Amino acid sequence: MTTRTEHILVLTRDGAHTDERTIAIEAAVAIEVNGIGYAVLMATPAALDDLTTGFLLTERLIDSPADILDLDAFETPAGWIVRATVAERCAGRIHDRVRHRTSDTACGLCGVSGLEQVVRPVARHAPTPHTSAAAVFAALEAIRAHQPLTAATGALHAAALCDAAGAIVAAREDVGRHNALDKLIGACAPARITEGFLLVTSRISFEMVDKALVAGAPMLVGISAPTALAVDHARAHGLSLVALARKDAMLVLNDPHHVFAARL
Amino acid sequence: MTTRTEHILVLTRDGAHTDERTIAIEAAVAIEVNGIGYAVLMATPAALDDLTTGFLLTERLIDSPADILDLDAFETPAGWIVRATVAERCAGRIHDRVRHRTSDTACGLCGVSGLEQVVRPVARHAPTPHTSAAAVFAALEAIRAHQPLTAATGALHAAALCDAAGAIVAAREDVGRHNALDKLIGACAPARITEGFLLVTSRISFEMVDKALVAGAPMLVGISAPTALAVDHARAHGLSLVALARKDAMLVLNDPHHVFAARL
Repeated sequence: MTTRTEHILVLTRDGAHTDERTIAIEAAVAIEVNGIGYAVLMATPAALDDLTTGFLLTERLIDSPADILDLDAFETPAGWIVRATVAERCAGRIHDRVRHRTSDTACGLCGVSGLEQVVRPVARHAPTPHTSAAAVFAALEAIRAHQPLTAATGALHAAALCDAAGAIVAAREDVGRHNALDKLIGACAPARITEGFLLVTSRISFEMVDKALVAGAPMLVGISAPTALAVDHARAHGLSLVALARKDAMLVLNDPHHVFAARL
Repeated sequence: MTTRTEHILVLTRDGAHTDERTIAIEAAVAIEVNGIGYAVLMATPAALDDLTTGFLLTERLIDSPADILDLDAFETPAGWIVRATVAERCAGRIHDRVRHRTSDTACGLCGVSGLEQVVRPVARHAPTPHTSAAAVFAALEAIRAHQPLTAATGALHAAALCDAAGAIVAAREDVGRHNALDKLIGACAPARITEGFLLVTSRISFEMVDKALVAGAPMLVGISAPTALAVDHARAHGLSLVALARKDAMLVLNDPHHVFAARL
């Protein structure tokens, strides 16, 4: 279940009336990996297999969806629990990450260690995008048809994989923009993401760029503003970056392969 | 530093031109409490004392700002480190929370334990709001003057404490909506928040309601949509909740003290 209907009161400048609105379900999703409680995400409880696969990939806990040997999701009164079993060769990373998150003696380096965990290695430079401004404008129009939950509730973000011409190959929605992108990556990884581009209906923060890089995308497009750290991260790893992509204009923040500069 | 200027390429349907835009700085902020690395937040690196105070309050690690004995923030190449020293009587909670986050033996209950951490006790029911629809409309107009970073970059969220008539008492901006609310709570806590209402320029998820409850606010107003879990949490603890608050209309999701129903 991803939405429910609410009886609400609408206040206007002149008065009030009762009405019904559809609102988005949000649920706690606890992700266990090889029996270890790794994270709790606040998410739209749908496509939890895609969410977990994408999250484990972008957290660098696995290298490919094939590293997941078993995945089971079930609902409890307090939320959802997803139990993933990953290949033995990946198991050590989970212990490393969990241990890093808790240093329960005062070492004077905890903050430093925490900061080092933020900027994690990116395995490869982003490939060259083979697309065009016209394709991005086309994708911006096409994505709306893939946002049924957003249309109903106004409360979700979407992430889409678009082909070189801007057609939507796959899309996922979630109350969290990071989750929407993880769901998309989990649904599409690994092969298809290296062509076309990723489109997100949200702001572009550091973590959104980082997920696009881990997924092997050539280009990330967002309909809202980027942060400086996101721009820096995209430039450091050759990810083409387009922001504030709207009906009539878009901003190119990084264009290392001169895909867009040719229009000047 | 909270913004920087970028030379960018603007693509339109007809062509391209170069331009300059102001973009928002985003930084990793590692929060250490009594020598323990507790969390890393991606935030706007300003008002880090407010952020830390509010975060420690809404995480229930301290009961009042007076529990913070010392607070020191400094910048490193990888981001900011904030070192907080809290009263000895609060120190046990930090160890409990950190220990809960890592159960490095397969106990079969990790996911359950993780979910239980999400819905944490709320100490008290929200008080009765003494305000009106007119005050909320006034606050929506007034808050814009308190969003200089948003005006410059389009990339930030704001949270404001409004008095009963809708005047802005205090406001904070951040690239993260949770951080913006924590900064506001840290700046205002504890006394003044129990009057008037909180206004956030974002969607209302579970965690936003939870922070408002811990801060002792009578009412939370958001300019975008709520999630069902946020509505449930507000209703369970008597927090008046208004969403999709726009120029001409707003939706009342919870009105336990019949502040708005009188307009029907």
